[in-house]
Amino acid sequence: MNQQQQRTAEGILFTDQYQLTMAQLYFRAGMAEQPAQFEYFYRRNPDYGGHQAGYGVNAGLAWLLDWMSAAHFCDEDIAYLRDQRHSTGARIFHDDFLHWLRTDGNFDGISLRAVPEGRVVHPNVPLAVIRGPLAMAQILETSLLNHLNYQTLIATKAARIREAGRGRPILEFGLRRGPERGVNAGARAALIGGADFTSNVGISHVLGYPPKGTHAHSMIQAFMALGEGELGAFRAYAELYPDDCLLLVDTIDTLASGVPNAITVFEELRREGYRPAGIRLDSGDLAHLSIQAARMMNDAGFNETAIVLSNELDEQTIWQILTQIEDEASLYGVDADALIGRLVYGVGTRLITSHGQPALDGVYKLVSIEQGEGWTPAMKISESPAKTLNPGNKRVWRIYDRRNKAQADVLSLEHEDPRQWQQVRLHHPSEPNKRRTLNAAEISAIEPLLVDVLVDGREVYDQPSIEAMRAARQADVERLDAGVKRMVNPHIYHVSLTEGLWELKQELIRSAREDASG
Amino acid sequence: MNQQQQRTAEGILFTDQYQLTMAQLYFRAGMAEQPAQFEYFYRRNPDYGGHQAGYGVNAGLAWLLDWMSAAHFCDEDIAYLRDQRHSTGARIFHDDFLHWLRTDGNFDGISLRAVPEGRVVHPNVPLAVIRGPLAMAQILETSLLNHLNYQTLIATKAARIREAGRGRPILEFGLRRGPERGVNAGARAALIGGADFTSNVGISHVLGYPPKGTHAHSMIQAFMALGEGELGAFRAYAELYPDDCLLLVDTIDTLASGVPNAITVFEELRREGYRPAGIRLDSGDLAHLSIQAARMMNDAGFNETAIVLSNELDEQTIWQILTQIEDEASLYGVDADALIGRLVYGVGTRLITSHGQPALDGVYKLVSIEQGEGWTPAMKISESPAKTLNPGNKRVWRIYDRRNKAQADVLSLEHEDPRQWQQVRLHHPSEPNKRRTLNAAEISAIEPLLVDVLVDGREVYDQPSIEAMRAARQADVERLDAGVKRMVNPHIYHVSLTEGLWELKQELIRSAREDASG
Repeated sequence: MNQQQQRTAEGILFTDQYQLTMAQLYFRAGMAEQPAQFEYFYRRNPDYGGHQAGYGVNAGLAWLLDWMSAAHFCDEDIAYLRDQRHSTGARIFHDDFLHWLRTDGNFDGISLRAVPEGRVVHPNVPLAVIRGPLAMAQILETSLLNHLNYQTLIATKAARIREAGRGRPILEFGLRRGPERGVNAGARAALIGGADFTSNVGISHVLGYPPKGTHAHSMIQAFMALGEGELGAFRAYAELYPDDCLLLVDTIDTLASGVPNAITVFEELRREGYRPAGIRLDSGDLAHLSIQAARMMNDAGFNETAIVLSNELDEQTIWQILTQIEDEASLYGVDADALIGRLVYGVGTRLITSHGQPALDGVYKLVSIEQGEGWTPAMKISESPAKTLNPGNKRVWRIYDRRNKAQADVLSLEHEDPRQWQQVRLHHPSEPNKRRTLNAAEISAIEPLLVDVLVDGREVYDQPSIEAMRAARQADVERLDAGVKRMVNPHIYHVSLTEGLWELKQELIRSAREDASG
Repeated sequence: MNQQQQRTAEGILFTDQYQLTMAQLYFRAGMAEQPAQFEYFYRRNPDYGGHQAGYGVNAGLAWLLDWMSAAHFCDEDIAYLRDQRHSTGARIFHDDFLHWLRTDGNFDGISLRAVPEGRVVHPNVPLAVIRGPLAMAQILETSLLNHLNYQTLIATKAARIREAGRGRPILEFGLRRGPERGVNAGARAALIGGADFTSNVGISHVLGYPPKGTHAHSMIQAFMALGEGELGAFRAYAELYPDDCLLLVDTIDTLASGVPNAITVFEELRREGYRPAGIRLDSGDLAHLSIQAARMMNDAGFNETAIVLSNELDEQTIWQILTQIEDEASLYGVDADALIGRLVYGVGTRLITSHGQPALDGVYKLVSIEQGEGWTPAMKISESPAKTLNPGNKRVWRIYDRRNKAQADVLSLEHEDPRQWQQVRLHHPSEPNKRRTLNAAEISAIEPLLVDVLVDGREVYDQPSIEAMRAARQADVERLDAGVKRMVNPHIYHVSLTEGLWELKQELIRSAREDASG
């Protein structure tokens, strides 16, 4: 795809065909500018097969806003739509609609409230609420889902990997096996969710982060083919990068060649007054090799030099490596905690693709439409009660208990403010008999989760830095109960409805059933 | 990411930091312009967990070429690199190297041979061979892997889904849950691999395909909220799109409301002389519902109207749906083959994310380097014999038997031409005792698989159209043995070495082992 094609394919036409055919229908039915409200939410935390997330980390909003501010129908887009034809040869899009699209086909009328990036989030909670003219709010659906689903998916995976690594540095290495240009969004989301750095130079530049890296096997191979050995390659690298000398030790034989050669070079650096950065292990039994490498480096007096692990790492493999180190290190006279405290994780494929669950099931649902003087809630019933819509215009709250742990996210009607209540009665979203009551005395705070981002297309939001998003994630994770953070079979965090919203939902279910049978 | 940032992040800096630090090392060591040869290949066909691919479909080359032709170091990139610092504050990149990058940091010196897009491909076969100055060939690695891995992954998945669907139309719907901007590459690869159309408007425009779509639940919801029912929504849609009226029937109740209302509208269309396009089922038991819907439509005389299935489809669910239809249709007086012959598949998340295996394990390995008068093969030994490199400059051949079925892909030394031989002796790449001999009489053709694409940065290749790639894929799939195409536990297609290449490999393994122990 050349750059002209890229502008076309990533502009306003970055949407599904049916959004445009529906928009034309709304236009023809006089509904195109009818104010409507949609919500974005996901239904289930990622389940990676054998282990699953107890929470998500929200990401992607800033890049969605960038897309929205640039997207509009230009003459070329309109000409393309004018040429589209049905199988019969009839034109699909008519001139009146195309004229409307050319003049009004932008997001200037859209208002948006959203949960800030970096916040911990949960299923069925609206993460973005979109209000605006029905046709353009409909056209927005696809790109909004695309931007928010993928970054939230990757930020969530990164947070798990960070937890598994017990706070040691995580380096994002996924560019080469990730999904084409989408990797840049993935690297950003990884930083928000828990990675500390990325190897990706371009996105590091854009986000103001220093990119990180070591060297590849090919460097050793090139020196070997030219008649120099691994030691020669290490020496050349150390001479050029004495300040950050990190050597990949598994090209020939990790323990017989790589680690001894690295130690030789590190000793030379030490004599010149430099502090070697570390070694990288990229194959084999990483737990066992890291113990043996640590032992050899300790013997040479490099007790704190970092050991970077890479090769198909994710939260489960890191967990397993640390468990094995705790079992095995003392057999070789290595202190397990000290070793774990010098590890660094290079995480590639399994982070950038969210291995085990490569998509978030986020959806964008019409919840209400304005007519006459007020808003009419919209309904969507499903055979599965859990998939029946929570209808109408709402607010979203997070309740913290006296320990300052998050206890529940609550969806309320738009005019409700649980902060004013003596008791908060919480309903399960679909099971009639599951309810509980929290007294004000049990509650330390009730926080509204949605912030104003766009008002009639105008940005009213001070976008936080990546650092601020990382801090928000860290603070939110600390306010989760340990059970919710469990790697396997986590405790289900409560997402509840107020009584008022529960009653509205039941009434709309009854009325839809009557319509269908009548 | 705004457009300026996108240019930065998707240009020449779309690479890993270590490529640049290695390039500087090569530059300092006087090796930056030393001619080197790298190969791109993958090691294993995607394994989706419980079922696996018996072959791959090659894709991504054209977009890699577009990236290469635009990528170069501009002043802003150089300024950014100049500012990069080690943790000690020392600069990482020095002026002499940056000056070289600014003037020579492009792909003008690169030659590239590759397997054409759309071709069926197999593990360990070089799909792209890169020859050029060591430093720039090294910097190319990351982006080349990124472009080729993802599209080949998705084309491979699409080919499986097409086989499962027995040639009925496949519509790609993955934009909303796919990996951000990477979805456009995924949609292209899906078309090459087996999808017939995509819902993605922008990429359809760029590739010259008509985008396809129906409508969403939200359209029905909007009409319902405004006091009109599903029937009203269907009528409005049919009035505007009588030529291609395809109705989504599961918003309220598929069999009690959606299908009867669709039939009502189809009858109205028929009276006006139109031919209804079909219905779409997006939830529930798709096999059972499609049988019941077919029965109801048959009773109304719509025996050929299409039934589009969607909702988390992939090759396995389609296979299961067809099996269930074959078991169950006759119980309801529906002809299973006739029903299967009117099905269309809308495939979203599980295609665009290659569900079950979200990354291809493609690698880029240095195979030789030129010094003095000739090329020295480069070696990389692994503890796993299957991962030990096939070294040196090579050619790639596909051998067809008398039935015109592909029997093996063969890697030979560069000067070897098996077409001249009376017998082709084939060695397993890593197991010494696995070998076989094919006589010329058993062979109908020996085809060289690599074509010249770039010669010293100049494109010498007539890029095929997407249609030509699709035709190549179709022809190649037809020339595979049925066992290789099996959905589960496929027969292993042979990828072999000539005796000459086998001997070279053994010699380099011996010599590397001697170096390591000496």
